Amino acid sequence: MNTQDTSIDATTRRAFLRALAATAAIASIPRATAAETPDAQAHEQAMAQLKPGSENIVILLYPGFTALDAIGPEYILSTMSGAKVKFVAKTLAPVTCETGFEVTPQFSFENCPAAPDLFLIPGGTAGVMAALADPETMDFIRKTGAASKLVGSVCTGSLLLGAAGLLDDYEATSHWQTLELLPLCGARPSKKRVVFDRDRVTGAGVTAGLDLALEIVQRYRGDFYAKGVQLLAQYAPQPPFPGSGDPATADPDVVKLMNGMHKPFVDLLGNSIKAVAKP
Amino acid sequence: MNTQDTSIDATTRRAFLRALAATAAIASIPRATAAETPDAQAHEQAMAQLKPGSENIVILLYPGFTALDAIGPEYILSTMSGAKVKFVAKTLAPVTCETGFEVTPQFSFENCPAAPDLFLIPGGTAGVMAALADPETMDFIRKTGAASKLVGSVCTGSLLLGAAGLLDDYEATSHWQTLELLPLCGARPSKKRVVFDRDRVTGAGVTAGLDLALEIVQRYRGDFYAKGVQLLAQYAPQPPFPGSGDPATADPDVVKLMNGMHKPFVDLLGNSIKAVAKP
Repeated sequence: MNTQDTSIDATTRRAFLRALAATAAIASIPRATAAETPDAQAHEQAMAQLKPGSENIVILLYPGFTALDAIGPEYILSTMSGAKVKFVAKTLAPVTCETGFEVTPQFSFENCPAAPDLFLIPGGTAGVMAALADPETMDFIRKTGAASKLVGSVCTGSLLLGAAGLLDDYEATSHWQTLELLPLCGARPSKKRVVFDRDRVTGAGVTAGLDLALEIVQRYRGDFYAKGVQLLAQYAPQPPFPGSGDPATADPDVVKLMNGMHKPFVDLLGNSIKAVAKP
Repeated sequence: MNTQDTSIDATTRRAFLRALAATAAIASIPRATAAETPDAQAHEQAMAQLKPGSENIVILLYPGFTALDAIGPEYILSTMSGAKVKFVAKTLAPVTCETGFEVTPQFSFENCPAAPDLFLIPGGTAGVMAALADPETMDFIRKTGAASKLVGSVCTGSLLLGAAGLLDDYEATSHWQTLELLPLCGARPSKKRVVFDRDRVTGAGVTAGLDLALEIVQRYRGDFYAKGVQLLAQYAPQPPFPGSGDPATADPDVVKLMNGMHKPFVDLLGNSIKAVAKP
């Protein structure tokens, strides 16, 4: 039970831990440290196959954001060695997500990189309505979105993008229950899970953020790298109910349940968008 | 652009926002508020189909934890109306995850419910090694795990469970690269994505946490409820490279790359486990 019993040289271990803790998962074993381990050669060869990059990626947090919409892509995108993936919020204070816990952003609206390579917006429920009603947040989305090379969203985040005028005449997607609201923002709704249209990429509900992020990795780093990330994430999904994740193939009674539950929200959200989006 | 243009009655909207923000996604529209909307009846009927529960669920955070391992299940489990899903860490200070951002726990080791219905442990890389070397964390896992009705893990979290003696003579899984380490803890490795064995449930690498959590919802609330959650999460995954998430079907060059990259870590992790786990 005594941790002093470990047979690893303490200095190696500390250096390894420091290095590993400071870097993204896939690039987590720097060469200098790996050279001290028995499998250094295989490690060297593996790392040499991965081109590092320097993508600047910013993900928006706002009160009530759906954490999985943000953190699924954050995990996947952080595996790109050399990429910087950071959260931005109005201030540097921790932001409470939809389910009630807090995530601390690394940037505020004030010190955020003005023109990231990728600017990504997660969805939410009440949080999206509150963000729509907050001119400072909408201004930040409009300004940063206009300056970013690629602008993306997961789930109902597309309605924030759209209401900020960033999806006008774009094909886009959203959570299946809010797809019908996209035309209020001038976007053409698509039932695809991930929609790339020029400099926009939108994902469907919540878990679609994983597929979206992997497709972004593929575009930035190529197939081989993206396959490595998919294997690292062990993304070989086995949903317990095949077909139940898509309204087109789900049990109609379940679809009816979900629509009954959320129709009031969708109605109110539509009104909020109409109040903000340019006609 | 003026948010004052909204046509929703301000009082209704505020009440709705407050209520929605305070509750889990699937149960997010309380009856009183829904009654004020046009779709109140459908909403009432939908909500009536969902039995609320009272599960007490605690998810461990430790420095270097993989955020997606924790937050994937947190999202899915939080959709169970009446369930309490909270994070626990050594203290109430924000905990830095593997990729460098901070999540704030709601419980410390001191004020955490002593006997939750479910105690879940996410994985990590260097973070797992650091947790293994921290007697206070290992004691908390041992104590809380022994008192919980169901104990689970995602990814390399199973090695923390195992090293704490909680997987002795259990079938279990882990990230595919660390499966071979499970016997060091007395566990029988399984290549299944989600492994239930009596009062233990373990998931494979990172994204397996979603499948694990949906299976837990199914056990707590039944098929109909779990199907609703899968649809809410729009979990109809479309990985860009079919087969690439599983080492058995992935491109062998990609498997070789990943093994080359992580073998030093797996070796060091094995030594850490040997130093802590009872023989």
